[in-house]
Amino acid sequence: MVEGDKMALEILIGGQFKIHSIYAVADWLTENAPLLAHHQDKIAEVSERELKSISSLTTPNRVLCILEIPNAKLDDTRIANSLSLVLDNIQDPGNMGSILRTADWFGIEHVFCLDCVDIYNPKVVQATMGAFLRVRVIPTDTTIFEHRHQLPVYGTFLNGENIYDTDLKQKGFIVIGNEGRGIRPHITPFISHKIKIPAYGKAESLNAAVATGVVCSVFRSR
Amino acid sequence: MVEGDKMALEILIGGQFKIHSIYAVADWLTENAPLLAHHQDKIAEVSERELKSISSLTTPNRVLCILEIPNAKLDDTRIANSLSLVLDNIQDPGNMGSILRTADWFGIEHVFCLDCVDIYNPKVVQATMGAFLRVRVIPTDTTIFEHRHQLPVYGTFLNGENIYDTDLKQKGFIVIGNEGRGIRPHITPFISHKIKIPAYGKAESLNAAVATGVVCSVFRSR
Repeated sequence: MVEGDKMALEILIGGQFKIHSIYAVADWLTENAPLLAHHQDKIAEVSERELKSISSLTTPNRVLCILEIPNAKLDDTRIANSLSLVLDNIQDPGNMGSILRTADWFGIEHVFCLDCVDIYNPKVVQATMGAFLRVRVIPTDTTIFEHRHQLPVYGTFLNGENIYDTDLKQKGFIVIGNEGRGIRPHITPFISHKIKIPAYGKAESLNAAVATGVVCSVFRSR
Repeated sequence: MVEGDKMALEILIGGQFKIHSIYAVADWLTENAPLLAHHQDKIAEVSERELKSISSLTTPNRVLCILEIPNAKLDDTRIANSLSLVLDNIQDPGNMGSILRTADWFGIEHVFCLDCVDIYNPKVVQATMGAFLRVRVIPTDTTIFEHRHQLPVYGTFLNGENIYDTDLKQKGFIVIGNEGRGIRPHITPFISHKIKIPAYGKAESLNAAVATGVVCSVFRSR
C-alpha cells in the first residue's frame, strides 16, 4: 500500500510495479487522467472521508495505491559485483524505511533482510520516501552468505577494526545489526571483516539508520 | 521528564541535573534506596497503574523523574575551539533525539537549536538514549553566528562542494537543515562553506539524522 501524490505518480510513470488498485478522490483522478488511461479497470473513486478510513496516515493524501508484491528474481552477477546490505533483525518500521532511503542515496541496489519488520508494512513504505521503488529488498535467510562465501562480509562490532583505517572493497555485504542487540550471535560467524565506527563521545551506540549512513559513506568515499 | 531505570540511575549517579521529583514503584525504591538517601523529600511512591497514567510511553518503566531545566551558561572558549551543531528548524522528535545521540557519539559538546521541536518534549528525551545527559542543547537564534563570525560555518546544500574533497576544520559550526526544506533561506547567508554529501543513487535526500551522522563522521575521520 502506497500513499500520496508523489509516489503514486512515480509508480504510474515508472511502471516498475504491477498495480492492483487505485483509490483516489475525484480531483486527483481528473488531474491525472492521461496517466490513468491504461488502468481504468483498477480505479475506485472515493470521498476524502472514505480515503481517510482506509489510510494509514493521520493526514491522508488524495490517492492510495495497492501494488502487487514483486517477484524478486536475483541477478547473481550483479550481486557479486556490487555492495549489498544485509539487515539483521531490524524491528522498527521508521528505521527500516530510513535505512532503505539511505541505501538508495548511496547507490546500494540490494538489501537482504534476516528476520526484519515486514518490508510491506505501510509505515516502512512511507518512511522510504520512494526508495522502495528503486532499491530491491529481499527477505532471506543465512543461505545468502553460504552461497556467496567468496565475497567479503563486513559487520560492525565494538571490537572491530577502525573503519576509517580499514581497506574496504566496493563489493560484498555490509551487515547492519538489530537496534538494541547489534548483530546476533548466530550471524557473527558469517562476518569476515569486523569493523567499527569509532566513538568520540560517551554514547553507547548509534541509531541503526545513522550507523548505516556512516558505514555506506565511508565505503563510497574510497 | 525522563523515564526508565537506566536514565534515572545515570541522573542519580551523575548529578548533572537538579531533580525536581521522582515517581517510582515500591520495588524500584527498595532496590535503589542507597542512591535515594539525599532525595527523600522528592520521592513519591506510585502504583504501576498510576505510573502508566503519567507516563508518555506505551509500556512504562518503573520510574519517572522530573528534572529542572538546566541554566545553560556557555563557555565561549570551548565553543570557539570545538565543533558544534546548529539545527535549523528540526521538527520531528524522533529525528531530534537521534541527532543528539549522534552528536554524543561523535563527541560534539554543543548543539544549538533554531526554531526546533521542543527539546524537552518527552519523545525527544527518550529518543536521545541518554545523550541529553552529556550533550548541551541550547535553543538560540541567528545571533549565534553574528557573535562568532571568525569560525567556519558549514552547511549541506545540493550545490555544495563534495564533502569528501573539502578541507574540514575541527572547529566551527555544522548547520543541519529542516527535514523537508533543508537550510532555510534566511539562514543561508550565515554559511561560509557549502558542502554536500554526494548521491550515488537516485534518492532526493537523506533523513536529517542520517545526514548528521555522515557529516560528523567525515569531519572526525580527518
